Amino acid sequence: MAQINENYLKLQAGYLFPEIGRRVRDFQSKNPHAKVIKMGIGDVILPLVPSVIRSFHEGVDEMSKQETFKGYGPEQGYEFLRQAIVKNEYLNKGIDIHEDEVFISDGSKCDTGNILEIFGQDNVIAIQDPAYPVYVDSSVMAGRTGKIKKNGYYENLVYLPCTADNDFIPEIPSERVDIVFLCYPNNPTGTAANKEELKKWVDYALKHNTVILFDAAYEAYISEENIPHSIYEIEGARKVAIEFRSYSKTAGFTGTRCAYTIVPKELKGMNSNGKEHSIHALWYRRQSTKFNQVSYPVQKAAAAVYSDSGKKEIQQTIHYYMENARIMRESIANIGFKVYGGLNAPYVWVNSGKGLNSWELFDKILHEANVVGTPGSGFGPSGEGYFRFSAFASRENVMEAMNRLKALTF
Amino acid sequence: MAQINENYLKLQAGYLFPEIGRRVRDFQSKNPHAKVIKMGIGDVILPLVPSVIRSFHEGVDEMSKQETFKGYGPEQGYEFLRQAIVKNEYLNKGIDIHEDEVFISDGSKCDTGNILEIFGQDNVIAIQDPAYPVYVDSSVMAGRTGKIKKNGYYENLVYLPCTADNDFIPEIPSERVDIVFLCYPNNPTGTAANKEELKKWVDYALKHNTVILFDAAYEAYISEENIPHSIYEIEGARKVAIEFRSYSKTAGFTGTRCAYTIVPKELKGMNSNGKEHSIHALWYRRQSTKFNQVSYPVQKAAAAVYSDSGKKEIQQTIHYYMENARIMRESIANIGFKVYGGLNAPYVWVNSGKGLNSWELFDKILHEANVVGTPGSGFGPSGEGYFRFSAFASRENVMEAMNRLKALTF
Repeated sequence: MAQINENYLKLQAGYLFPEIGRRVRDFQSKNPHAKVIKMGIGDVILPLVPSVIRSFHEGVDEMSKQETFKGYGPEQGYEFLRQAIVKNEYLNKGIDIHEDEVFISDGSKCDTGNILEIFGQDNVIAIQDPAYPVYVDSSVMAGRTGKIKKNGYYENLVYLPCTADNDFIPEIPSERVDIVFLCYPNNPTGTAANKEELKKWVDYALKHNTVILFDAAYEAYISEENIPHSIYEIEGARKVAIEFRSYSKTAGFTGTRCAYTIVPKELKGMNSNGKEHSIHALWYRRQSTKFNQVSYPVQKAAAAVYSDSGKKEIQQTIHYYMENARIMRESIANIGFKVYGGLNAPYVWVNSGKGLNSWELFDKILHEANVVGTPGSGFGPSGEGYFRFSAFASRENVMEAMNRLKALTF
Repeated sequence: MAQINENYLKLQAGYLFPEIGRRVRDFQSKNPHAKVIKMGIGDVILPLVPSVIRSFHEGVDEMSKQETFKGYGPEQGYEFLRQAIVKNEYLNKGIDIHEDEVFISDGSKCDTGNILEIFGQDNVIAIQDPAYPVYVDSSVMAGRTGKIKKNGYYENLVYLPCTADNDFIPEIPSERVDIVFLCYPNNPTGTAANKEELKKWVDYALKHNTVILFDAAYEAYISEENIPHSIYEIEGARKVAIEFRSYSKTAGFTGTRCAYTIVPKELKGMNSNGKEHSIHALWYRRQSTKFNQVSYPVQKAAAAVYSDSGKKEIQQTIHYYMENARIMRESIANIGFKVYGGLNAPYVWVNSGKGLNSWELFDKILHEANVVGTPGSGFGPSGEGYFRFSAFASRENVMEAMNRLKALTF
């Protein structure tokens, strides 16, 4: 009989978001009249902006005529999109990134999950704790960890605790780490790292030849100065970092699916004899063999994010969500919760201060306020006691949810 | 320094199709006036049919309004599409497949490449030789093989030669095999397997608890009776087979990206203690953790394939390509080549009979006739001496290419 990949058996219960979905469905089936407000899964709610829609339709129209029909696209994505990315996200901001270092994909979830494939089994991997669950789960599934311990940590994975005690900024590891996942602005804590902080990481990586897997999915939400939008704003980062960017949160593409990953040509890994190899070449091979690019009309739609009108429209959307975040921060603080994040990211990270653990808080808020958030412990042991609220909701729902939370008694 | 996945170093040169692309670009840059006819990469050329375009536009329109906007979709794909698949592809044909056994994806290339992730490292894998290169390359990249040998075969992989001597129908292995990739109608040979042949495989798999990875990407091109469109037409297959289906060739989706994979709930694998585990549960976990579904408007577009008008329109497209295949089979046979396939698949598999190896034939045909085909040896050692022509071309180009081939001298 075919053997299964036993690493899957090490995984804890379900992936976080399906588990939340199951609990909400269960509650709703028992309480069909409850008006549940969802601020759990970080999913956008505003429609695609007009410029993106126009371009999306144009792309579909091109697929309807033989002269403009597109079959398989270029392995790294269409040049028009990669050029727009390089120009608008990097060159215009003085960052040196080349078109052939951009890999268009169908999502950062896929890319951050798949990237470990090109690295060897024996690398020491570090992750922020709490973190987006895909980093840990895909590491487990790929056999890069041991079993889970009683304290909720997997063996052979280096955890970098991010709590209120260290302002959610983890310490640089004292031990050797070969690969580190960093997410800034951070999901789930909503906090951001400034230039000095990121410079420490790049310097560490340059010294130890560590690869930084930098997830910048939320960079569009940065509102403060001195917060880098790209790891490549830090000198030397081209030698050590891969950057993941996405249109999911930037332009409401969670259901449209488009993202990109930057792999600079300077970035090297080594084989067991110590010989250096291009990481770019390995990722190119992975993607051209096991992936077949993003739908052409979707790439056309994504390119419109960089049109003059697209830029303005998207700023309005982001402003809308960040105004939600401001309201949430203030309202939840008024209830007496400790509140973090929400300034440079669409997430507000809270602690009830009432001694409830995260899932207890989840169930209480779901059952008594009919509001769905995300239990912090679902992002890692250091998230225990915390709770994430997403600003991706209508203003009306945000106001209503805040009113319901005010009425809760602990 | 981060260690790379050294299995990548075992790979031979580039993935086949990028290599063809490079040679063609090279030729074109040196011969800018040559009118090159591409019948190499199996890429469709006819536009999406009107019903699909209409539905695609509707999907985009829904993304433009808050009331109908779609964010993250269901983990296995939208129910409307999975229902249409189950009804039209299976239930209506008397095949028992359930909606929750359908996993929508962005391509069979991705799914056939990723599926090995859920299986253990020690499985013995068998592949047809020649075969679609993704099966071998993804096995190599995932460390399921040894090094490549001088004869072009990777160690620890079981090859099932398919040549004119056995009518391209491989023998059932005498040794134990845990996982076997089967592709019918076959890419690249264009040949098909009848019920009796597939029954041998299902019986073998039932006896040895082998998992059959059945790639049916070309089933829509079947024209003869007694050729199964699905492995599940064979009794017992639900216990042993995963089936990959795609809209790429069926409905011209190579640049639009949508496919689906069937994982029956009866299918089991075992862990090292011999305990059985559901393969469906593992694939669900893989896809919900490392994938984020297909663009909503694309799923809407795919569902239109099953409308009454969509079905008729797609039949016309398929008929067009298969008429190309008929012309190609006859013309190439007239030149004196041996010709196979092209009856139940859009590929014509030929042997020049002139003692040229596949890449020699590729270069000769490219340089002297300015026609691009695919060298058979790119699909595996048993493809040596063969050459694949794709019927995905305009009638005009097919006629012109056939005329140019007639003029070649050997």
